[in-house]
Amino acid sequence: MRESEPGGRPRAREVGIALGALPPGPRNAITDVGGVRVGHATIARGSGPLIRGVGPVRTGVTAILPHEGDLFAAKVPAAAAVFNGFGKTVGLVQIAELGQLETPVLLTNTLNVGRVADALVGYMIERHPAIGVTTGTVNPVVAECNDGYLNDIGGRHVGEAEVRAALAGARAGAVPEGNVGAGTGMMAYGYAGGIGSASRLAGADGAAGAGYTVGALVLANFGRRRDLLIGARRWAANWPNRDRRVRASPAWGRASRAR
Amino acid sequence: MRESEPGGRPRAREVGIALGALPPGPRNAITDVGGVRVGHATIARGSGPLIRGVGPVRTGVTAILPHEGDLFAAKVPAAAAVFNGFGKTVGLVQIAELGQLETPVLLTNTLNVGRVADALVGYMIERHPAIGVTTGTVNPVVAECNDGYLNDIGGRHVGEAEVRAALAGARAGAVPEGNVGAGTGMMAYGYAGGIGSASRLAGADGAAGAGYTVGALVLANFGRRRDLLIGARRWAANWPNRDRRVRASPAWGRASRAR
Amino acid sequence: MRESEPGGRPRAREVGIALGALPPGPRNAITDVGGVRVGHATIARGSGPLIRGVGPVRTGVTAILPHEGDLFAAKVPAAAAVFNGFGKTVGLVQIAELGQLETPVLLTNTLNVGRVADALVGYMIERHPAIGVTTGTVNPVVAECNDGYLNDIGGRHVGEAEVRAALAGARAGAVPEGNVGAGTGMMAYGYAGGIGSASRLAGADGAAGAGYTVGALVLANFGRRRDLLIGARRWAANWPNRDRRVRASPAWGRASRAR
Amino acid sequence: MRESEPGGRPRAREVGIALGALPPGPRNAITDVGGVRVGHATIARGSGPLIRGVGPVRTGVTAILPHEGDLFAAKVPAAAAVFNGFGKTVGLVQIAELGQLETPVLLTNTLNVGRVADALVGYMIERHPAIGVTTGTVNPVVAECNDGYLNDIGGRHVGEAEVRAALAGARAGAVPEGNVGAGTGMMAYGYAGGIGSASRLAGADGAAGAGYTVGALVLANFGRRRDLLIGARRWAANWPNRDRRVRASPAWGRASRAR
Repeated sequence: MRESEPGGRPRAREVGIALGALPPGPRNAITDVGGVRVGHATIARGSGPLIRGVGPVRTGVTAILPHEGDLFAAKVPAAAAVFNGFGKTVGLVQIAELGQLETPVLLTNTLNVGRVADALVGYMIERHPAIGVTTGTVNPVVAECNDGYLNDIGGRHVGEAEVRAALAGARAGAVPEGNVGAGTGMMAYGYAGGIGSASRLAGADGAAGAGYTVGALVLANFGRRRDLLIGARRWAANWPNRDRRVRASPAWGRASRAR
Repeated sequence: MRESEPGGRPRAREVGIALGALPPGPRNAITDVGGVRVGHATIARGSGPLIRGVGPVRTGVTAILPHEGDLFAAKVPAAAAVFNGFGKTVGLVQIAELGQLETPVLLTNTLNVGRVADALVGYMIERHPAIGVTTGTVNPVVAECNDGYLNDIGGRHVGEAEVRAALAGARAGAVPEGNVGAGTGMMAYGYAGGIGSASRLAGADGAAGAGYTVGALVLANFGRRRDLLIGARRWAANWPNRDRRVRASPAWGRASRAR
Repeated sequence: MRESEPGGRPRAREVGIALGALPPGPRNAITDVGGVRVGHATIARGSGPLIRGVGPVRTGVTAILPHEGDLFAAKVPAAAAVFNGFGKTVGLVQIAELGQLETPVLLTNTLNVGRVADALVGYMIERHPAIGVTTGTVNPVVAECNDGYLNDIGGRHVGEAEVRAALAGARAGAVPEGNVGAGTGMMAYGYAGGIGSASRLAGADGAAGAGYTVGALVLANFGRRRDLLIGARRWAANWPNRDRRVRASPAWGRASRAR
Repeated sequence: MRESEPGGRPRAREVGIALGALPPGPRNAITDVGGVRVGHATIARGSGPLIRGVGPVRTGVTAILPHEGDLFAAKVPAAAAVFNGFGKTVGLVQIAELGQLETPVLLTNTLNVGRVADALVGYMIERHPAIGVTTGTVNPVVAECNDGYLNDIGGRHVGEAEVRAALAGARAGAVPEGNVGAGTGMMAYGYAGGIGSASRLAGADGAAGAGYTVGALVLANFGRRRDLLIGARRWAANWPNRDRRVRASPAWGRASRAR
């Protein structure tokens, strides 16, 4: 497990691609919302052919903490919208009923959701021994994407240690992006995908300006290369076909691919 | 872990309480639907005061298998309706999107859902090694009730062994009811609650008779004694206050605990 | 059209049937919630066999105004829950999205919803000429039950005059109940059904007492006689079969019609 | 009311803009699905300043008939997805519950939904006199967009005559597109919007080819000019700013604009 940091690659605005009409916050990240912290735990080990339960492993977990206080005691107004329901989140049913979030939100790989949810329950009980005894239970919230192309997803390698590391390492400030945490093994539009984050400043009337800070964190894992648009341009046509290079690798990528 | 059988207590119809207008199937159980099997794994150990992670343990897991074949290969049309969303099921989002069930349905205690879902993923992968490699992932379906009054729910005592036992022990025929499987530590209307099952025969026009067999399995864990109605009668007024007796029993879970 | 008042029949509590554990408000009606007003417009005319578009007519419209002010300017936080979706309400989609109500809520018969919604739009535009010009549109909310057994429902006899009468006649105080307004032609459990209302006082902790007043208004139109329970008793067994008498009455709608 | 035909303007593929990877059907329209028919009724009359209830009128109604038979007798499997719920459709609640469509689908302007739904009920009753008498009621389905910038939307000018004309005029073959029917007064991305239609051929495995024909009909009424992309290009930068010309019209645009 390593706590990965993006390798100095520029963000879109740094290369002149500004999206949308509203201005971003200071870090253009979800952490521009006061109190929000993000932490990642990344597992990248092994190479060569897939051996179920062994590797190669390219996965992880990302934690989003909505405020710095005690989430179980000071629950957060929350809502969830499902656009393409072919997913395996946990915790959305109760959010829809009560409109409240009482744990951090964790992201991981699809088959690891149960193990990560269980670790989150353990983490909450440790801090709140009354859960399940003199108070009610707790609703862990975990979402996922499928990293099974680069990762031994069936091995469910994200366990209690990684969940605790992501939670303990959560901090304000710049959000590590790309193939880190839950994004480690993700692909989008045929390229390395994973974690992205942004923020926008909106006035009370929806116009740009002070008023509200809206933050987003994305775990991207979708799309075909031919459909990639960035700032309304088809960049892919001008880019080297790295996918082909990866595919030419004898060990098919789960492997020797330098990130 | 013991595979519990209800202790010869009569069912409602045997004491003259017939509910509804349609006739039941041969066993008046969900297993009257052809191919459906039910299995339980029950954990009942320890007594005395609650020690988190140790006990007393009164919990378990119940498995419902919709047909005798391979569920991942022959998925089942499915739907889910949430009436009171203050619950922690997993798997409903994908059922709503795809309208299909591809695993057994498991029931357990509220805080054990993650661990049971993970065990179900492991069980499915074992039977379908292509999951997460050459085919997609799998959507485990687990529902729950809170047995925290009689059970060390925070201990999450239901693990892979119990899940496999419930699945392996699933069978057609009479369904063990009451404090068995996921029902082990449940209470309803102030009495011992837990598992119940029934079936009804309905004609194609909704009238009684041959045509369709509708089966139900319930995990009951709700209600106050004063609201209990059975066949439109308030039976509780005539019954001994067994709840008090249970709580005085030295051998029944956290019985001696002051609520 | 007449503004009907129930004929002095006693309410449940007046004959000793008290339901639930929380105490009712002063009028045991939705109007115990400060500012809420209810109005009915009732149409009862004609007898003999059904002539589509002519009669007999036994229908109407009921209006619930959530506060005394300007609803379009001071919108009300709102939610809607659909339990049995075999119905034809309008307006719920936007309530689910915005969480706001901006018109009175109208109830009427199933086939009259379009005409009543249109009349409500007209009423709102009249008060807010900016709707659809310099501000957005308006979301009329109308719900319904089927009174087609006693009423020429296909005739859609509720029009703009009735909608305006129900809105203009809305008032605080006792709520006319039974076969009045939208309840005029409704049946429940084989008896005359229609409008009912109640309220309960609940403390901030859900216990009885001062804190919150919860109000309800029901348009009842369901159920078979053999399933009728009132205060957990099957009263129907002791009651005269009024349904047969009603159907024999020459003056009561489509009474003489063979079902 | 006129039954408008688009004025010979080319469609996207005719000017070399092909969207997506799957091949279109013969007409690249929803009518490529066997049995589907589309009809429009268009109202375009008046000019000069807005007089509520008089005009100018630029609106209409579009009817989609899913098959050539009797929809009430041969209901169609149906589903509805709401992406941005700030809309005033009718009929979706019952579609979600029963999964069936039993009327044509009508599109019109936002404030006209009630009147159009009522006309659709009348149309259905006329064909099925048993509705509301010996069978149940009928669930009209009507969706909408806001044409209030170009149309006297508060006047609700679409009535029974237009609904019947759109239904009677529905036919297979090429679908009139643009500012016709419900699209008459719509704008998208600052240009004239309205009706569009397309189809795609998909194999059983999602690949291109024979198997399934998927059809779509869109009523477009959204977007700002600066966000317009067509085939991943920002065309607007090269186009004359027609919006400015319209806005310069002394008569509030609802007016002298030649379409």
